[in-house]
Amino acid sequence: MKTLLVIGIGAGDPDYLTLQAVAALNRASTFFLFDKGTEKDSLIHLRETICARHIRQADYRFVTAPIPERRREGDYRQAVDDLNAAKQALMVEMIEHELADDECGAFLVWGDPALYDSTLRILAAIRREGRLDFDYEVIPGISSVQALAARHRVPLNRIGQALEITPGRRLERFPAHLDSLVVMLDSHEAYRRLDEPGLHIYWGAYVGTADEILIAGPLQEVAEEIHRVRSAAREEHGWIMDTYLLCRGPADA
Amino acid sequence: MKTLLVIGIGAGDPDYLTLQAVAALNRASTFFLFDKGTEKDSLIHLRETICARHIRQADYRFVTAPIPERRREGDYRQAVDDLNAAKQALMVEMIEHELADDECGAFLVWGDPALYDSTLRILAAIRREGRLDFDYEVIPGISSVQALAARHRVPLNRIGQALEITPGRRLERFPAHLDSLVVMLDSHEAYRRLDEPGLHIYWGAYVGTADEILIAGPLQEVAEEIHRVRSAAREEHGWIMDTYLLCRGPADA
Repeated sequence: MKTLLVIGIGAGDPDYLTLQAVAALNRASTFFLFDKGTEKDSLIHLRETICARHIRQADYRFVTAPIPERRREGDYRQAVDDLNAAKQALMVEMIEHELADDECGAFLVWGDPALYDSTLRILAAIRREGRLDFDYEVIPGISSVQALAARHRVPLNRIGQALEITPGRRLERFPAHLDSLVVMLDSHEAYRRLDEPGLHIYWGAYVGTADEILIAGPLQEVAEEIHRVRSAAREEHGWIMDTYLLCRGPADA
Repeated sequence: MKTLLVIGIGAGDPDYLTLQAVAALNRASTFFLFDKGTEKDSLIHLRETICARHIRQADYRFVTAPIPERRREGDYRQAVDDLNAAKQALMVEMIEHELADDECGAFLVWGDPALYDSTLRILAAIRREGRLDFDYEVIPGISSVQALAARHRVPLNRIGQALEITPGRRLERFPAHLDSLVVMLDSHEAYRRLDEPGLHIYWGAYVGTADEILIAGPLQEVAEEIHRVRSAAREEHGWIMDTYLLCRGPADA
């Protein structure tokens, strides 16, 4: 039986890797990577660095598949579905042809595989197809949400209250029933269009890396500073990965 | 200057510890523990085991403070506030009298310090008081939410959709605007009273430990099984720590 490991490698700091993830890296002979052919290749480089630092045996290998970037125009959900269909075909190909029976392969997932990542969904779909037989395990990782909270040193939730995590494209106003909201993948900077008074923001980009930027404060006082800093950073790096927590009042009140 | 480290040690498996947490353990000379005097002392034992396994220097020590359990009757918020006030007084005492200037002390937090834990909120309150001077850092840890998803091998969110994490006491019905909801701290088993059709549940107790129990399926088919298994496990262990994910349909569809 082939075994696949879906390993969360944490978001940002290579030391976010768990001991369980290090052990899992040492079980795999083959590491499957997707190459988007963009500036984000530094994330591929990070995966190779993590393997080089933590794997004790010498005979592991990388199998890299080129994958198109998601279409930026048109229907979002259709674009994601198309991308995942392409990814699924590549994963079937990799598992079928690049992994012998009784070998162990690994996918290294940025952050946590359970949060805003498609690997688990695609593996479940491949298993439902029934053509390929494999077992798989999931190793959780520190998500960008947790890295953000840790670096700002604030709790994510209020005492006894709920926390919502949402993609930026769904954010039009601050939900009435919530005190705390984490926004991910917000390329359109939805925080600039919120006008509820009393909101505080805890924003971070490249959190946990040497390029980390953190800004926090009352939303209406710091929103334009975040916008300026964010635009400049994206310009400089060619890409940006940022997240933020919004709260009614300070998060640690 | 005194330094405090708030170290997330992960929820369940000692191998959820991150490399960053291991490095942090090795910076501290003094570990502050709270003893609730209950069966949950096995969590104190786990902290001591983690220190023994990962700390290389010999001269660290534990300072254990007895802390009352939260009152189970009466107003929840008031009971939490009272407990946190007691905890704050103890923490001031510990930082003031059990840590020399330029020493480093650590609080080991189950799961992630940013999720449903009071340590960060209390440290912020102590700093606002202004009487004690210290610096502090936060090390994120794998939360029980992530452990649950990893062990069930399912994503927490739907593509492009929000995820809410809520305490059980707030759950009366499945929120109309959500596809995915994680419920924590649900001693009253709110899942048994939900009657929306089509919900799936991914439940786990003692996740990541040798006593782990996982049950998943359509809510109306497995709710009573979860109740039976949960009641028996709580009886057997004297305490239970469980979490669940609710979704409209299977989580990995």
